[in-house]
Amino acid sequence: MRILNTLPREDGYHMPAEFEQHWGCIMIWPERADSWQYGAVAARHAFCQVAEAIAKSEQVIMLCSFEQYDTAREMLPEHIQVVEMSTDDAWARDVCPTFVKNDVGDIRGIDWGFNAWGGLVDGLYFPWDKDNKAARKICDFLNKDVYDQRDFILEGGSIHSDGEGTLMVTESCLLSAGRNPKLSKEEIEKRLKECLGAEKVLWLPCGIYQDETNEHVDNICAFITPGQVVLSWTEDKEDPQYEMCEKSLKYLESQRDAQGRKLTIHKLPLPQPIYMREEECRGLIHLNGEPTRVDGERLAASYVNFYISNDSIVMPAFQDKSDAQAKEILEKLFPDRSVVQIPARDILIGGGNIHCITQQIPMHK
Amino acid sequence: MRILNTLPREDGYHMPAEFEQHWGCIMIWPERADSWQYGAVAARHAFCQVAEAIAKSEQVIMLCSFEQYDTAREMLPEHIQVVEMSTDDAWARDVCPTFVKNDVGDIRGIDWGFNAWGGLVDGLYFPWDKDNKAARKICDFLNKDVYDQRDFILEGGSIHSDGEGTLMVTESCLLSAGRNPKLSKEEIEKRLKECLGAEKVLWLPCGIYQDETNEHVDNICAFITPGQVVLSWTEDKEDPQYEMCEKSLKYLESQRDAQGRKLTIHKLPLPQPIYMREEECRGLIHLNGEPTRVDGERLAASYVNFYISNDSIVMPAFQDKSDAQAKEILEKLFPDRSVVQIPARDILIGGGNIHCITQQIPMHK
Repeated sequence: MRILNTLPREDGYHMPAEFEQHWGCIMIWPERADSWQYGAVAARHAFCQVAEAIAKSEQVIMLCSFEQYDTAREMLPEHIQVVEMSTDDAWARDVCPTFVKNDVGDIRGIDWGFNAWGGLVDGLYFPWDKDNKAARKICDFLNKDVYDQRDFILEGGSIHSDGEGTLMVTESCLLSAGRNPKLSKEEIEKRLKECLGAEKVLWLPCGIYQDETNEHVDNICAFITPGQVVLSWTEDKEDPQYEMCEKSLKYLESQRDAQGRKLTIHKLPLPQPIYMREEECRGLIHLNGEPTRVDGERLAASYVNFYISNDSIVMPAFQDKSDAQAKEILEKLFPDRSVVQIPARDILIGGGNIHCITQQIPMHK
Repeated sequence: MRILNTLPREDGYHMPAEFEQHWGCIMIWPERADSWQYGAVAARHAFCQVAEAIAKSEQVIMLCSFEQYDTAREMLPEHIQVVEMSTDDAWARDVCPTFVKNDVGDIRGIDWGFNAWGGLVDGLYFPWDKDNKAARKICDFLNKDVYDQRDFILEGGSIHSDGEGTLMVTESCLLSAGRNPKLSKEEIEKRLKECLGAEKVLWLPCGIYQDETNEHVDNICAFITPGQVVLSWTEDKEDPQYEMCEKSLKYLESQRDAQGRKLTIHKLPLPQPIYMREEECRGLIHLNGEPTRVDGERLAASYVNFYISNDSIVMPAFQDKSDAQAKEILEKLFPDRSVVQIPARDILIGGGNIHCITQQIPMHK
């Protein structure tokens, strides 16, 4: 593995869209006692369902701690690889490398700086050193070269690519005080373009209400093809989310992508607000003296937080009346893929959803 | 990774000889404070030299703890992979899987039971659970099926294969009280044949004097081609090693291999006895209250403990007058390979040598 100090774009690399062909997918086994209630048992079952759905059409690699290897190996089917790696939690999207690809089909990883979504300003746990080392180590075991971008704080969940030169991010996240406060918006945009081989960055103003990642884009909006996105949507004007969705819609309607296209925007309903239950809070063990969740806390649930595998859309279900409608919409938007809905409350409680716990590895030579 | 409960021989698999083509080699980064003097600094430099010599003609994967990843990555060149894996020490030969191969070029691993060379009877450390889990986890990350043989205690250093149906072991090791005391010699032989796809087992009586592995075969004798072996040798009749070599020679002269061939035996001189120095002992930190080495202790040095890579013989040097002669003999016996000699006292102090810290992965589809 070479550790590269050049920039992917100048080397002819760009970030493919998630809907392009994958070689596989990386996930991380849930274990952290202040993230996953009651010994992570329910979360592990949900992670297994996600892994199995993805493994139908791509290789799945589940990373886990030394201590959890036997448990993960027991709970997962044999065609899913289990590989030891120390991490601080289970958010593969944010701590694994972002892979970029060149015209002849080689891939390389990007090792961004990771500081638990805000470091000492508003990060979600401390320390985060194991997470911050994961991307490079994944490239090492996959035997792929890696770009050293550790001086730039970024998570995989805060970027989307259409594979044709357009990126999508949120201002609330990328301009947050806990990430790269010394860089201007222009400097951040420049870095994104240089690293991800893009020409245009779409800056949504915000994401999902109470999303503790400073509102990652992958919870509110996603490309489904070049030129088309799905946007989380609510019709409830009393909900603080309403104004956030409105602002995002207006922004997207005003923009063109790198290819000069106006965007086609498909609204995807949000579920009714979902709140932490007292019993769930009691299942969390406080590691730093303060609770990670409180009874009645609203969780940042969204159907947009799905994973696009080679043959499926793996999306959350919330036992909500909108589950079926959201599934139907995605079935129409992805006619060549089946849509698999997985009960995801036990993932949501941890602070994210199916897109947050997965990271694709593009097909490559 | 499928975990198989069948037997390799009945599935059409056998253990190739080490001198057949390799895909790569696994090593483990030294760290243990009661094995490696003065923070393992000198040992790490020696391990790096071994890894680099092998990496000239095969892929080398260096396993290391989470804590040592950055150090290993810094000390090793970029074309060597560094992969996190928890182990109890650095003896890849004995804790990694033994790979077997079938006629169409597929490989599988064998996961033997490992109990630190004798468990609670005369094992060398406690606990050994991380080591015992390594073989299966290596198969998992290589995505190769694994045979579950954990109920049978065996180390890779205690077996040699000529790739044509003949195995070589020592009685002192395989019949030791700390390994499989409930199995008779016949039962052990049957298991070896079934697992390694062999027809004949050569039982050398013993190995190298004071070899704390109960005298592994890989320290006294090795196949160089089918029908030919090198045997460690001393002419010093005062040395307890003399009688051990004599017995081994007589045994080998009396035997035929699986193909019915008499063996051609090439003597390889042993270095002069090598003893622990007081300063070296002071560099070891006792982890279980008792010293692992004492001043003046004789070490089990042998030139036979070499690794056969695709293009080289990677062998130890001991700053001994026989270094050059041993190198010359191997150069003649391996005319198609270069012989690389690496100063190995810092490996020897840990309790083994170059063959003990390496495990080949055969070339495969």
